[in-house]
Amino acid sequence: MKFKNYSLIIILLVCLNFISCNEQTANTNKTEQVVVGSEHPKLILTKTGVDNIRKLLGTIPIFDASLQVTKEEVDAEIALGIDIPIPKDFSGGYTHEKHKSNFLILQKAGVLYQILDDEKYAKFVKDMLMQYEAIYKSLPVHPQTRSYARGKLFWQCLNDSNWLVYVSQAYDCIYNYLSKEERDLLENNLFRPFADYISIENPQFYNRVHNHSTWGNSAVGMIALVMDDDDLLQRALYGIKDVGLDPEAKDNDGGFIKDKDGRAGFLANLEEPFSPDGYYTEGPYYQRYAMYPFLIFAEALHNVKPELKIFEHKNGVLLKAVDALLQLSDADGDFFPLNDGQKGMSYFTSAMVSTVNIGYYFGSQNPGLLSIAKKQGQVMLDDSGLAVAIGIKEGKAKPFEKKSVNLTDGPDGKQGGVGVLRHQGLEVVFKYAAQGLSHGHYDKLSFSLYENGDEVIQDYGLARFVNIEQKGGGNYLKENTTWAKQTIAHNTLTLNATSHFEGKYEIGSKHHSNLYFFNFDNPKIQIASAKENNAYPGTEMHRTMAIIKDDNFEKPFVLDIMKIQSNTNNQYDMPYYFLGQVIETNFKYNVTSTLNALGIKNGYQHLYVEGVGQAPEENTKFLWLDKGRFYSLTSVSTPSDELFFTRIGANDPEFNLRREAALMTRRKNTKNTIFVSVIEPHGSYSPVSELALNSKSNIAALKIVLDTEDYTALTITDVKDNTKLFVISNTNASKEAKHTLKINEKNYSWTGSYYYK
Amino acid sequence: MKFKNYSLIIILLVCLNFISCNEQTANTNKTEQVVVGSEHPKLILTKTGVDNIRKLLGTIPIFDASLQVTKEEVDAEIALGIDIPIPKDFSGGYTHEKHKSNFLILQKAGVLYQILDDEKYAKFVKDMLMQYEAIYKSLPVHPQTRSYARGKLFWQCLNDSNWLVYVSQAYDCIYNYLSKEERDLLENNLFRPFADYISIENPQFYNRVHNHSTWGNSAVGMIALVMDDDDLLQRALYGIKDVGLDPEAKDNDGGFIKDKDGRAGFLANLEEPFSPDGYYTEGPYYQRYAMYPFLIFAEALHNVKPELKIFEHKNGVLLKAVDALLQLSDADGDFFPLNDGQKGMSYFTSAMVSTVNIGYYFGSQNPGLLSIAKKQGQVMLDDSGLAVAIGIKEGKAKPFEKKSVNLTDGPDGKQGGVGVLRHQGLEVVFKYAAQGLSHGHYDKLSFSLYENGDEVIQDYGLARFVNIEQKGGGNYLKENTTWAKQTIAHNTLTLNATSHFEGKYEIGSKHHSNLYFFNFDNPKIQIASAKENNAYPGTEMHRTMAIIKDDNFEKPFVLDIMKIQSNTNNQYDMPYYFLGQVIETNFKYNVTSTLNALGIKNGYQHLYVEGVGQAPEENTKFLWLDKGRFYSLTSVSTPSDELFFTRIGANDPEFNLRREAALMTRRKNTKNTIFVSVIEPHGSYSPVSELALNSKSNIAALKIVLDTEDYTALTITDVKDNTKLFVISNTNASKEAKHTLKINEKNYSWTGSYYYK
Repeated sequence: MKFKNYSLIIILLVCLNFISCNEQTANTNKTEQVVVGSEHPKLILTKTGVDNIRKLLGTIPIFDASLQVTKEEVDAEIALGIDIPIPKDFSGGYTHEKHKSNFLILQKAGVLYQILDDEKYAKFVKDMLMQYEAIYKSLPVHPQTRSYARGKLFWQCLNDSNWLVYVSQAYDCIYNYLSKEERDLLENNLFRPFADYISIENPQFYNRVHNHSTWGNSAVGMIALVMDDDDLLQRALYGIKDVGLDPEAKDNDGGFIKDKDGRAGFLANLEEPFSPDGYYTEGPYYQRYAMYPFLIFAEALHNVKPELKIFEHKNGVLLKAVDALLQLSDADGDFFPLNDGQKGMSYFTSAMVSTVNIGYYFGSQNPGLLSIAKKQGQVMLDDSGLAVAIGIKEGKAKPFEKKSVNLTDGPDGKQGGVGVLRHQGLEVVFKYAAQGLSHGHYDKLSFSLYENGDEVIQDYGLARFVNIEQKGGGNYLKENTTWAKQTIAHNTLTLNATSHFEGKYEIGSKHHSNLYFFNFDNPKIQIASAKENNAYPGTEMHRTMAIIKDDNFEKPFVLDIMKIQSNTNNQYDMPYYFLGQVIETNFKYNVTSTLNALGIKNGYQHLYVEGVGQAPEENTKFLWLDKGRFYSLTSVSTPSDELFFTRIGANDPEFNLRREAALMTRRKNTKNTIFVSVIEPHGSYSPVSELALNSKSNIAALKIVLDTEDYTALTITDVKDNTKLFVISNTNASKEAKHTLKINEKNYSWTGSYYYK
Repeated sequence: MKFKNYSLIIILLVCLNFISCNEQTANTNKTEQVVVGSEHPKLILTKTGVDNIRKLLGTIPIFDASLQVTKEEVDAEIALGIDIPIPKDFSGGYTHEKHKSNFLILQKAGVLYQILDDEKYAKFVKDMLMQYEAIYKSLPVHPQTRSYARGKLFWQCLNDSNWLVYVSQAYDCIYNYLSKEERDLLENNLFRPFADYISIENPQFYNRVHNHSTWGNSAVGMIALVMDDDDLLQRALYGIKDVGLDPEAKDNDGGFIKDKDGRAGFLANLEEPFSPDGYYTEGPYYQRYAMYPFLIFAEALHNVKPELKIFEHKNGVLLKAVDALLQLSDADGDFFPLNDGQKGMSYFTSAMVSTVNIGYYFGSQNPGLLSIAKKQGQVMLDDSGLAVAIGIKEGKAKPFEKKSVNLTDGPDGKQGGVGVLRHQGLEVVFKYAAQGLSHGHYDKLSFSLYENGDEVIQDYGLARFVNIEQKGGGNYLKENTTWAKQTIAHNTLTLNATSHFEGKYEIGSKHHSNLYFFNFDNPKIQIASAKENNAYPGTEMHRTMAIIKDDNFEKPFVLDIMKIQSNTNNQYDMPYYFLGQVIETNFKYNVTSTLNALGIKNGYQHLYVEGVGQAPEENTKFLWLDKGRFYSLTSVSTPSDELFFTRIGANDPEFNLRREAALMTRRKNTKNTIFVSVIEPHGSYSPVSELALNSKSNIAALKIVLDTEDYTALTITDVKDNTKLFVISNTNASKEAKHTLKINEKNYSWTGSYYYK
């Protein structure tokens, strides 16, 4: 750590010391008001739970295995010795990673002390805590200045809060091992100042409705429960009262700091971002991150303050959230990268072990969760993990049922949502949600398509290499704003080369799409439909997506209808970000030996144009191959449609973006219009057998046979000349409504919002 | 099938009929000269073998499983019924794929008849053969005209030969089920005309030293053995005498048709392309394809003509070839894509089941082969497969030992070779071989790097989508010539933007590189070194590649030294085709929003320039991430070196090429020079844990401390300031030679061709 300006540092240190001393006095007063809980552990581990675990040791395989792994890891760390470096690095750097590994190890060592009753673990925890105690009060704010809320051990309060969530558990485990004097030392010089720093001293971090604050609230709440400090607990549950936050202030991600209703604290964070269905408005990547502090603090509250009935709060939303989150993962368990989501994050991450365990134990013992726990191969070393391990041992595990789901967004479930259509290995993720706070993307009515856990039509996800120091300190890259959040980066419609809501968070966060209907009744037709009226004022977009299993087709196919009504003439860009290799098109296109960007802003500056063609009469057909499977896109087109092969990567001076492709249809100078496509997965190719099976599209013609305000009807004719008719009622979504419609001189009658035959 | 010119067709049919009638007369004479073998089956299955198999049925798991799979497959085909369509398609098309599946099923049905003794299989084989018999003689040459040797059932004689290799086995199996009259019908109207068509009528196909001819020879030989026709057998073993082939004629791949020594037949094909080490000069992808006809015909010869001692031929080269081929696969079993090789082809392909089984049974019962057979999960339904299945059942399988190997090329092993260096999951494939016939690439001294079976520095492989009809009929694409074969497509040196041997097959096929030395004695230093003097007349290139495990490094690293001595000033381009995402460079580079091609020919027209920079003083450093692992390239550089980030895909109007990247160093206007680089694999990144471990290079400095005609010495200094010296003797490769050398006023003495300490 290099100090370039000693005098400034000294002034800072003096100031901090002054603040800390004041805090200490206040804290001392507080401790006098409360009675220290007599029984420890009580937070996550409980006295009864530990007794139970000790009795069953050596008899429950997955529990024993998890214990053994933990023991080996902690023993190795004990052998290495303790290091508490002076904080200086961003994530990815040594001091960051060391303090991170320290809090993880402390929590584990505490648990081992309880379960194995071996003092060496308690001593290790005590020794390390004492070393933190020795430096904490004299630590300046972290030298890296990027964060809107800098921590002390880490560059942001968020990571300091992570530390306290874990270390509270370690402290609880060795509470009775310590003398009163030792506890006072730790509480006065480490835990209370720590809790105050991340809350009172950083209200812009702590007093929000945001996943950052959830960590802060839980951290303060967990240490409050261990210390039996009710003031702190109130601060955790309800936030800091009367903090004058600037309503216009934003965090590093561009999100508003002050909640519009001025709410704060753990309970507000539980109510606001979760919909009644358990969907977390930022999306599954952030939900996965938030689940640990939500559930671990909930478990602690349940253990120490059962009267709060935290798991019943808001109709049991925390437990619903466990199921919702798992439904938002693909067949391999990878979370769909909605909004800012890093691809590859999955239910194999350690936070999901506790999520699954707590979800099982405090929920309805869903045997599907046991099968996920089996795949995870480890359990928590507490009552919930023991229950899971016993369930698995008793053979209760059943496959976790992934099915089509429609998850509402918004605290009341009235701000759009996310639909996941599923059938025979296909998954369509259809997003018509609210903005998703500061991590939201401008992609109303966008979708992505998966087959057997592989992306077929991809959502780009975030532009960030989380924790890779060389890539902008492991933080969000500027291309996250200039590319990943922009509308054109998504499989949805961009008007006039401008993102939804002009790409402005202030506007986007006021609006959401609306569900039109979803219907999963017929297993062979999984369908969802939604409308968006605010992304482009004066334009209504209505998208319907369906997975249809027709016996004349080898596999289910995806039907995609985007109907637009607009007051003005617009340019419509409709991309499909396919992964894989172009195999065949039915249209001619030109490639040039020089590549230029598609535009200069709103994400268009990041797309190279690799080829340009004119659409054929009637249908554009495009066939590609990825991971040994063929896919055909058949779109209704007119010869005035332009077709662009684009590739991501223009104006990307640090190679932050992946060079991936799209086929984009551009329709210019048009008011009302409609885009209709079918995506067919078919056949296979193996480089081992070198057999190309069923490598051709099964569709001979896709035709719009009627398109009025009230109805859209289209026919799909296969290569054997079977024709099916699909009709959607555009203005009456009722399941019970009866419709009669004349198409090509023939009358059709049906009940419900759509017809397929 | 549409005939546009009826009169032409009629003339053709008449001509063919005339030829066929003549043939028929000749054939009838032949059959009178030979005595039909009294015992069948005798070719692959044997009477004794079948008895043995029948006795053990139900007791050898993997054999029983293979039998069950085969039975289900054949039963399904029998249920479907027989279809013998009039040939019209390229590979990938219906008629091609149907005739292909027919011959595969015929062979299997024959085997099932023998093993299960169920007449329904014999009847199915007979019925299908009779349908072929009914049409064969009146079939015109295949309507697709692309091949230099068009078949009748298929567009090329090669596939017709495949048919006969398999169908001979089926015929052998039901030989005794048929009456004399039925056999005469088949032999006179189908098998003999068929054998004559692919040999006498297509000597440009049959009478070569080439994998095509191996299939042709084996096909003729197999049916000869079944029919006990010694004339045909002689034609199979020694080719057709006195065929006036044009010595300048070439096939579709640009390869010469006439062997320079005028040799032909199976034995010539066995001697010529295989080196004494069992390396097949076209490379492992084609060796895998050729192994089936080589080994299956060898097995048949062994069974019917044991006096030929075919497995002992050329010092047992066929069995050595089995081991050599397996050594040329990566940790996952994928063959290294040397020359025209399609990536993903692996030892899981069905041809490799017979290769492994025959290699085991007729070789030295290497228990390593059993472990591969176990992974394959199936065995041949014959004596060799039974032996393997019994070996597995008896628990004899051991891991197949992949080790560093040096495989010579050329019939006498004197035309360079291929080295594979292996240590702790790293594999360096170093190619200093002969041209590799018509499928060879112009890539002397090129290399590719693998870690744990994943490509790190890739060889592009071929530009072809084998059997995917939409991509040029599944055949070689023009980009195979304009890109994949060119020198710049490979990790080796290109001079003056021109490929080795001017990219001319006539020149390239006259030359080969030369081994300088290899040394695998020290497990921590696996090293190979070779020289190339003819790729650019007047220029000598000397490349040394080593995998070095130094205890100061987390993993082994790769040392790469390319020393050039030239009479003229040249431009040197040295690319590394890395896979993955750029993480960090130590040099500045410019990217433009417009991409241009690097050049206009010799492959350069297919590379976009994504970034251009100047190299720093001393060392260029480049760090990338792929599949969760970090890699650092450290190169000795001077500020006059230009650095190019390139990406494949320019001038690729049908998207036939993969958009993959390279970092290329360009050194202009230089005579003698040297390129020295170290590639370090290190650390890991997981999107699940989001931990970036050991994400930085361990090398602080790479320095050339001496470079003379006789010696090159360099130092590698790590970040902890440990310095190691590497010296190579450039002119004395002897293991015994003693060297003393003064470097920076210090004397070093050692024995052997290199020094590292």
